[in-house]
Amino acid sequence: MPEIMVFAATGRTTEQKRGLARDLTDAMVKNFGVPAESVTVQIIESPRDSKAKGGILFCDR
Amino acid sequence: MPEIMVFAATGRTTEQKRGLARDLTDAMVKNFGVPAESVTVQIIESPRDSKAKGGILFCDR
Amino acid sequence: MPEIMVFAATGRTTEQKRGLARDLTDAMVKNFGVPAESVTVQIIESPRDSKAKGGILFCDR
Amino acid sequence: MPEIMVFAATGRTTEQKRGLARDLTDAMVKNFGVPAESVTVQIIESPRDSKAKGGILFCDR
Amino acid sequence: MPEIMVFAATGRTTEQKRGLARDLTDAMVKNFGVPAESVTVQIIESPRDSKAKGGILFCDR
Amino acid sequence: MPEIMVFAATGRTTEQKRGLARDLTDAMVKNFGVPAESVTVQIIESPRDSKAKGGILFCDR
Repeated sequence: MPEIMVFAATGRTTEQKRGLARDLTDAMVKNFGVPAESVTVQIIESPRDSKAKGGILFCDR
Repeated sequence: MPEIMVFAATGRTTEQKRGLARDLTDAMVKNFGVPAESVTVQIIESPRDSKAKGGILFCDR
Repeated sequence: MPEIMVFAATGRTTEQKRGLARDLTDAMVKNFGVPAESVTVQIIESPRDSKAKGGILFCDR
Repeated sequence: MPEIMVFAATGRTTEQKRGLARDLTDAMVKNFGVPAESVTVQIIESPRDSKAKGGILFCDR
Repeated sequence: MPEIMVFAATGRTTEQKRGLARDLTDAMVKNFGVPAESVTVQIIESPRDSKAKGGILFCDR
Repeated sequence: MPEIMVFAATGRTTEQKRGLARDLTDAMVKNFGVPAESVTVQIIESPRDSKAKGGILFCDR
């Protein structure tokens, strides 16, 4: 509470995810005044043939 | 804006996903009057032991 | 199965949603080969002070 | 209708998911008065470097 | 961890939601072996002109 | 791309949401190396009788 779900194409390193989870959580604590331990972050990655922008799959862009 | 998330069991081809992403985007442009480039589609697939209907996993149906 | 979730800012008419639900469902039937009755669409609308692009709320753009 | 999405870290067995899907569906039937066949459950698992609590990835805890 | 999101049409009472939240949480504790306090449930309700089955809005069914 | 969905109980001010959207977007730009304009944030709020922790609705805690 709150829960943050990040929907992204695959391809990030663990180091990138580590930094993102920390900074998203900090943003929530700072702005919503919740304890850090109450914040959950989940990154939902889909392969590049399962995500599109403008109707074009990322694997085709 | 808007974002379309499709939750499905695994097992579709890239060709199927390519057609779906194009047609879902067209439907959004036609009905909501948004530019195609503003529409994001993500297909979130789960294996057949992680999706159920009527309380029965797809791998058991 | 599959489920389609559309995340949008508020402000569409019932007529727009009616057309969108029909066309999204048709796109799913055509491309994934599922029966129309198995397709669920939900539009999750948030007010314009609860959605942002580029870090700017829609109510501020 | 309704759709239940479970966001979890990876690592559960098919047996655990089978029981969960059954019990979540039963809970929906009992409390919301819907037919079991109308209930969909999808478990969206992310690897332990893609989920965090308190800003710390599960792979680091 | 895990988080349960329930996507439903509007129209349930607080009493129904109270029972659902309790029973969904119990199902998670029983099957996934997590502490109850780690389970979050959120019910995301949309009005009947924002949810469809078979391409037909609930307000038209 | 990516899309950030924040699931929360109602009760935040526009000012809190404004700061959160800006800081979540900055976190994404910094860690994932994407342009700010490609980042969408949506806050999905549910009333306090529609969100629970430990099986207890927020309106009962």
